[in-house]
Amino acid sequence: MCIFCQIASGELPSYKVYEDEKTLAFLDITPVSPGHTLVVTKTHYQDLENIPEMELVNLIKVVKKVSQLLKDKLGFNGYNVTNNNGVLAGQTIPHLHFHIIPRHAGDGHGPWQHGQYQPGEAEEIIKKITS
Amino acid sequence: MCIFCQIASGELPSYKVYEDEKTLAFLDITPVSPGHTLVVTKTHYQDLENIPEMELVNLIKVVKKVSQLLKDKLGFNGYNVTNNNGVLAGQTIPHLHFHIIPRHAGDGHGPWQHGQYQPGEAEEIIKKITS
Repeated sequence: MCIFCQIASGELPSYKVYEDEKTLAFLDITPVSPGHTLVVTKTHYQDLENIPEMELVNLIKVVKKVSQLLKDKLGFNGYNVTNNNGVLAGQTIPHLHFHIIPRHAGDGHGPWQHGQYQPGEAEEIIKKITS
Repeated sequence: MCIFCQIASGELPSYKVYEDEKTLAFLDITPVSPGHTLVVTKTHYQDLENIPEMELVNLIKVVKKVSQLLKDKLGFNGYNVTNNNGVLAGQTIPHLHFHIIPRHAGDGHGPWQHGQYQPGEAEEIIKKITS
C-alpha cells in the first residue's frame, strides 16, 4: 500500500491538520517551510489525469479551506499551492497531492527561471495544441 | 484594468489554448518551459482566498482538462500545476491563475529545497493550527 494510503487509513501516523470523510491534510515532514501541508484524497489516485472530476472538486475545496486555516493560524502573507504530476515533475509519492507552502520574506525560495519564446515558436506550439 | 482581465476580455492579444464562457487558458509569454500555460477565470479574483468556491470548482476542472490537452498534443511525461498567492509567493499579476508547466528530462528545474523539523517543532505547529 502506498505511504499516503497508509497515512490516510491511520496505519502510519501523521501530524493531522484537517480531516473529513474523503480528505486528509497533514504536515509534510520534510517541509519547504514550517507548516508545509499536504492535502490528499483518502482514495488512491495517481495524478491529475487519473482522479475523477468530482473527487478533484472535493479536494480543491479542502485545499482552499486548509490554506485559509493555515494562514489564519500561522500568520503568513503568501503561499504556493502546487501539484506535481510525474517523477520528472518532482512527484515522489505516486498518490495525487496538493502542497500548501507558507511563504515568508527572505525565505530564499526564488521563482523558477522564466525564458522567452523565439519568434514563431509560440505560434508553432498553439498550432500543435489546437490541431 | 488588470492585464489578465484585458487578456480575458480580448482587449489584449494572447496565444489562446482553451476558452469557455467563464475561463481562458493561454500561453505564458515568459515560459518556464515551452507550452507553459496559464488558466484564469474571466472574472477578476485576486487569489485563492477571494475566489468563490463555485468559480474555483469550474477553474480546477479546466486545469485538469487543459493539462490533458497539453499532454496529448505536446507530448511530455510530467507537469507541475501551481497557484501562487501573494507577492511573497511569486504572484506577479494579482488575478488568480494556475500555471501548468510541462516538464522534460534534464530541464534543470529542480524541486524546492526541503528541510526537517527540529524535535517538538511539528507538534508546536499543529498546536497552533488546531487551537
